[in-house]
Amino acid sequence: MSTEQPGYHIEPIAFVRSPYREKFGIPRQPQLAPDVEAIIELAAPYDRGEALTGLEQSSHIWLQFIFHHTADKAWKPTVRPPRLGGNRRLGVFATRATHRPNALGLSVVKLLEVITSPSPALRISGCDLLDGTPIVDIKPYIPYVDRVEEAHNLIASEAPALIEVALSERAKEDCARFEQNRGIALAKLLRQILAQDPKPAYQPFNESRIYGMKLFDQNVTWRYRQNNQQWQLWVVAISPLEA
Amino acid sequence: MSTEQPGYHIEPIAFVRSPYREKFGIPRQPQLAPDVEAIIELAAPYDRGEALTGLEQSSHIWLQFIFHHTADKAWKPTVRPPRLGGNRRLGVFATRATHRPNALGLSVVKLLEVITSPSPALRISGCDLLDGTPIVDIKPYIPYVDRVEEAHNLIASEAPALIEVALSERAKEDCARFEQNRGIALAKLLRQILAQDPKPAYQPFNESRIYGMKLFDQNVTWRYRQNNQQWQLWVVAISPLEA
Repeated sequence: MSTEQPGYHIEPIAFVRSPYREKFGIPRQPQLAPDVEAIIELAAPYDRGEALTGLEQSSHIWLQFIFHHTADKAWKPTVRPPRLGGNRRLGVFATRATHRPNALGLSVVKLLEVITSPSPALRISGCDLLDGTPIVDIKPYIPYVDRVEEAHNLIASEAPALIEVALSERAKEDCARFEQNRGIALAKLLRQILAQDPKPAYQPFNESRIYGMKLFDQNVTWRYRQNNQQWQLWVVAISPLEA
Repeated sequence: MSTEQPGYHIEPIAFVRSPYREKFGIPRQPQLAPDVEAIIELAAPYDRGEALTGLEQSSHIWLQFIFHHTADKAWKPTVRPPRLGGNRRLGVFATRATHRPNALGLSVVKLLEVITSPSPALRISGCDLLDGTPIVDIKPYIPYVDRVEEAHNLIASEAPALIEVALSERAKEDCARFEQNRGIALAKLLRQILAQDPKPAYQPFNESRIYGMKLFDQNVTWRYRQNNQQWQLWVVAISPLEA
């Protein structure tokens, strides 16, 4: 950039506390796993409760955030969205891909609760953000402005197809134990999250390969198998991450 | 911020060329004046046409931008939105006010044309952005994600009420001359823009006060008057700005 256009310094105003501990496995858009809850904790010097006054009147909010795991990567003019099978190039500005000139993200999430004490925070659901994501702005969703009735998008016209998710007996027991200890409906969350099929679309199904994702402080493992000639995502087990 | 959270440097990837030459008079949300066109010109080193490949398949786009006229101002935890008469305080994160910790804005606009030569640019309409606004990201509008059918917002549940706009004979002649010279339907644009009533809601109607806004390279002047016991915005004249 020339010295006339030096750019801007922006700071996190909040951080996300979410069950997603790694990028792999996160649904590719918000609200695809509607029951996944997260907390947005305001950060100093922006942790002023009055900055949230009135926000409880919005059912949904916009989060502008930093893709912090890729923020220092070089941008490329084109990307290969996984949704399109990874073999078609699109301009980065025609996608919501993470590798952007400015690593800015945008998500709309449901606002469940405005928390004022002991410190200001928001409880949200439908979150698609990695734990620790820096939030750089929070804005109310304004239906008459943001809900564009006549909008269309020929590249992503509807939500991605879902894959059937089934749990092994072992996985059901693991979930039951987690749910009893933590009060979180893990089996239900797993069905929502994994139905998006985290596997890259261009990768062939391979029954012997084991996949894993970190969720909360657990490692979730699965493989693919056929059921009535349909591919199914078969959750093998949920086990605590090594400390 | 602590050294652990140093913040982020972001750069303009494009600049807006719009008819709006000052903040006063711009509709407070995008699309309220749907015929106002603008051009988004990609800026070096991001002026790579392939970065826009596929964007023509989106009818609408998100612009993430910098409120550059207020970017260096101190933030305040609460603001008084003009929409609420200027006498009610809301948390800054419960509004889309310009004075934010990070001066980031968000607008959805209609994409009319992806321009590839002589240099990459987008032609848009429904623009609510000041001429020269730095754009820091462009993203496709994805209806199944962004159009949240069940969303509500009790603070801004519907578009603001409109005021009747009428043009003096002089203003009609000025518009006709501008339209003939420039091929832009100025009278129609003025009716859309001014129907939002740029006057602060808390300011009483005063028939003798003359208001003005800069639009294109013109100064538009108006006053308020009563017509059938309703207040009306009466456009007095449109005259070229001093060079």
